[in-house]
Amino acid sequence: MSSLSSQPYKGTRDFYPEDKQLQNYIFSTWRSVTESFGYEEYGAPVLEPLEIYTAKSGAELANEQTYTFTDRGGRTVAIRPEMTPTVCRMVAARRQELAYPARLYSIANFMRYERPQRGREREFWQLNVDIFGDDGVSAEAEVIMMSDAIMKKFGAKPEDYIIRVNNRKLINFMMAQYLALDSANAVSMTKLFDRKGKISDSDFIEQAAEIFGENSTEGLKKLEVLLAAKSMADLPAQIRDSSAVREVQQLFTILERADIKNLTFDITLMRGLDYYTGMVFEVGDTHPDNNRSMFGGGRYDGLVGMFGVEPISAVGFAPGGTTMENFLQTHNLVPKFKSTTDVFMITMGDVAREAIQLATDLRAQGINTELNLSDRKFDKQLKTALKKNVPYILFIGEDEVKSGIYTIKNIAKSVEHKVNFTELIQLVNSLPA
Amino acid sequence: MSSLSSQPYKGTRDFYPEDKQLQNYIFSTWRSVTESFGYEEYGAPVLEPLEIYTAKSGAELANEQTYTFTDRGGRTVAIRPEMTPTVCRMVAARRQELAYPARLYSIANFMRYERPQRGREREFWQLNVDIFGDDGVSAEAEVIMMSDAIMKKFGAKPEDYIIRVNNRKLINFMMAQYLALDSANAVSMTKLFDRKGKISDSDFIEQAAEIFGENSTEGLKKLEVLLAAKSMADLPAQIRDSSAVREVQQLFTILERADIKNLTFDITLMRGLDYYTGMVFEVGDTHPDNNRSMFGGGRYDGLVGMFGVEPISAVGFAPGGTTMENFLQTHNLVPKFKSTTDVFMITMGDVAREAIQLATDLRAQGINTELNLSDRKFDKQLKTALKKNVPYILFIGEDEVKSGIYTIKNIAKSVEHKVNFTELIQLVNSLPA
Repeated sequence: MSSLSSQPYKGTRDFYPEDKQLQNYIFSTWRSVTESFGYEEYGAPVLEPLEIYTAKSGAELANEQTYTFTDRGGRTVAIRPEMTPTVCRMVAARRQELAYPARLYSIANFMRYERPQRGREREFWQLNVDIFGDDGVSAEAEVIMMSDAIMKKFGAKPEDYIIRVNNRKLINFMMAQYLALDSANAVSMTKLFDRKGKISDSDFIEQAAEIFGENSTEGLKKLEVLLAAKSMADLPAQIRDSSAVREVQQLFTILERADIKNLTFDITLMRGLDYYTGMVFEVGDTHPDNNRSMFGGGRYDGLVGMFGVEPISAVGFAPGGTTMENFLQTHNLVPKFKSTTDVFMITMGDVAREAIQLATDLRAQGINTELNLSDRKFDKQLKTALKKNVPYILFIGEDEVKSGIYTIKNIAKSVEHKVNFTELIQLVNSLPA
Repeated sequence: MSSLSSQPYKGTRDFYPEDKQLQNYIFSTWRSVTESFGYEEYGAPVLEPLEIYTAKSGAELANEQTYTFTDRGGRTVAIRPEMTPTVCRMVAARRQELAYPARLYSIANFMRYERPQRGREREFWQLNVDIFGDDGVSAEAEVIMMSDAIMKKFGAKPEDYIIRVNNRKLINFMMAQYLALDSANAVSMTKLFDRKGKISDSDFIEQAAEIFGENSTEGLKKLEVLLAAKSMADLPAQIRDSSAVREVQQLFTILERADIKNLTFDITLMRGLDYYTGMVFEVGDTHPDNNRSMFGGGRYDGLVGMFGVEPISAVGFAPGGTTMENFLQTHNLVPKFKSTTDVFMITMGDVAREAIQLATDLRAQGINTELNLSDRKFDKQLKTALKKNVPYILFIGEDEVKSGIYTIKNIAKSVEHKVNFTELIQLVNSLPA
């Protein structure tokens, strides 16, 4: 039989300890900020019936990008491409029992059938944060405050990222009332806005003119006014006086009170997914090498209702692991790799009983101890310890057993100490975390 | 459109915060014991090429129980039913770079197409612990010591569980040399041993006789001697003198030095998977209501070699989340549910700016604070806080903002305090963890 490939499946990643440690750093930072806002963790299956995605997530995601297949019982299932339909399903199933506003989060893996590229993998990890049952701008303000708190917790400075905000109601009002588009043309124009950053200005104008059709002259003029607006105050009076703009203004007032400075109103921000119904926002990297949208979210009040219960309002956002990693790398914010092991014990001679006992005692004191009991040569054991980046190496042979005095080496400082057990514990615990 | 079902896919579970908290307790207990032994965490894709399972995991697992399908690029893939082939693939890919013995662990989800029943779900979570590059009994002793340490860390007493040990080399020697079976009959007999606990004694004897064929009288007599052996000393001399038995004896010597008492030699222990090559072990629950094997592992020296590199010896084990949960429930070891949130802030009146500032200050002190900024009625906010089991409720209105003195209620003790900010921090931090 020919041998098997040792490469992971296309578009997925193996996380060796050093990679996994960076991922864990990202997860624990997400977790600590999210829990500090009173959110509780949930978990959910990696497989779902396909229909929960086709119903609302937008045709492209469900049809072209989902890993879908028929199980042995004839059910059409999908590896989850996102968490939102799942968390809505879970909320619907306990519609009566949950306490509102319900604040929920999860950290989970997802799969999408996409062409792998920088920051985009077929399997990816995401934090999902959602608040259910709060209709007001306070919920919208909260998720933006959390996004900001997450960026700060990672060590980002305000100038490293920008938070762009828009509102679907405002978009709808603008399309129908101001640009006077019918519903089909409004959808086309929304999609064109969504692509604006990816196409040239002249292509944008040309395609916009096509959508306006015979009204293109007037339409393009109005469009120009919109795109020139750098803040809500620059918008035409007809839009400025709408209830949607008042909502956005209330939101900005709260966020200014919360001292969030790198915030901007962006009338071209659309967000791809079909299910948003109110505020939408995106956090973008401002670094010239990584100038891109990193993550975002918004209000989606209709989704819980798909599962046969009264709808519940919802606001959420979902940063991804790889995008976060790219951000940290770009801004030199990746922490230095440090082994989770504190002590590597090298044994010499017939000291198994005592070495096991010492290792057990160290572990009981919270010191992570790797014990070598095999009969490998001293040099080989030492090489292993150094290669693993373990900060302390402890030698134990028959002399050490007799005297109760151990030789321990601090690798970073290249210093050896002769210590008894109590001194040993103190020494290892004094290592900076 | 008819509404979608709010139930999870068959055989999978939704983890609401209370369930997720128990799962997190299990994960963090696994993690702390495993890291205390110097193991480092890795992560791996949820999808793998099907062939890595068909090659070695045993026909049933790969063919009947795996979620397998063809991706849009024509590749036959599987949702991982276990971690062992994956971690071997990863070790093979970095055969030269890794430091040996390599100690690796992961906590991940898996799927198998099985009939759902107690302790067995189609999606399940597992800790996987493996040590690569240690040929000796010290590696085998270590994984058994770790299994024991995990049980103890969960609060289990030695009488709550039993560790049964056997050795594949010993099984092979016994089948070929002592029972004088040819290789086909040896496989049949091994499978029959594996089923022993699940069938009646008379069925066992009858099926054994069939395998022995015309030599059944002599065969059954020898079998009786084997099954009567309660320890290695009871084994027939021919087996007792084999190198395989010496290996098991060395292992028991180390484990006795490590003070593991609830250990037993069990010549009928086979372990289902085909890839084991030496020591095999299982941890079983001794409680009459849950008397069953919980998890196990063993030595499998051949698997890394499947990926086109020189083989590396390996020993591993893999406890599952649901089985662990059943054990904790059976022995009343499930910790009490406690919200991860410390303080629920109820706001009254126009205090958004001050409430946000106070919440931000509390969070900066490590106090997880849920802030309500919506205009819900006082009673409704209070009800939400109580339903969520948050230990402290803080009231903030215009009077509190003016005076800087807040009213905080300890729910468990039903006591209210009037405190300033410094006293507030002290009070909340004094809560038992």
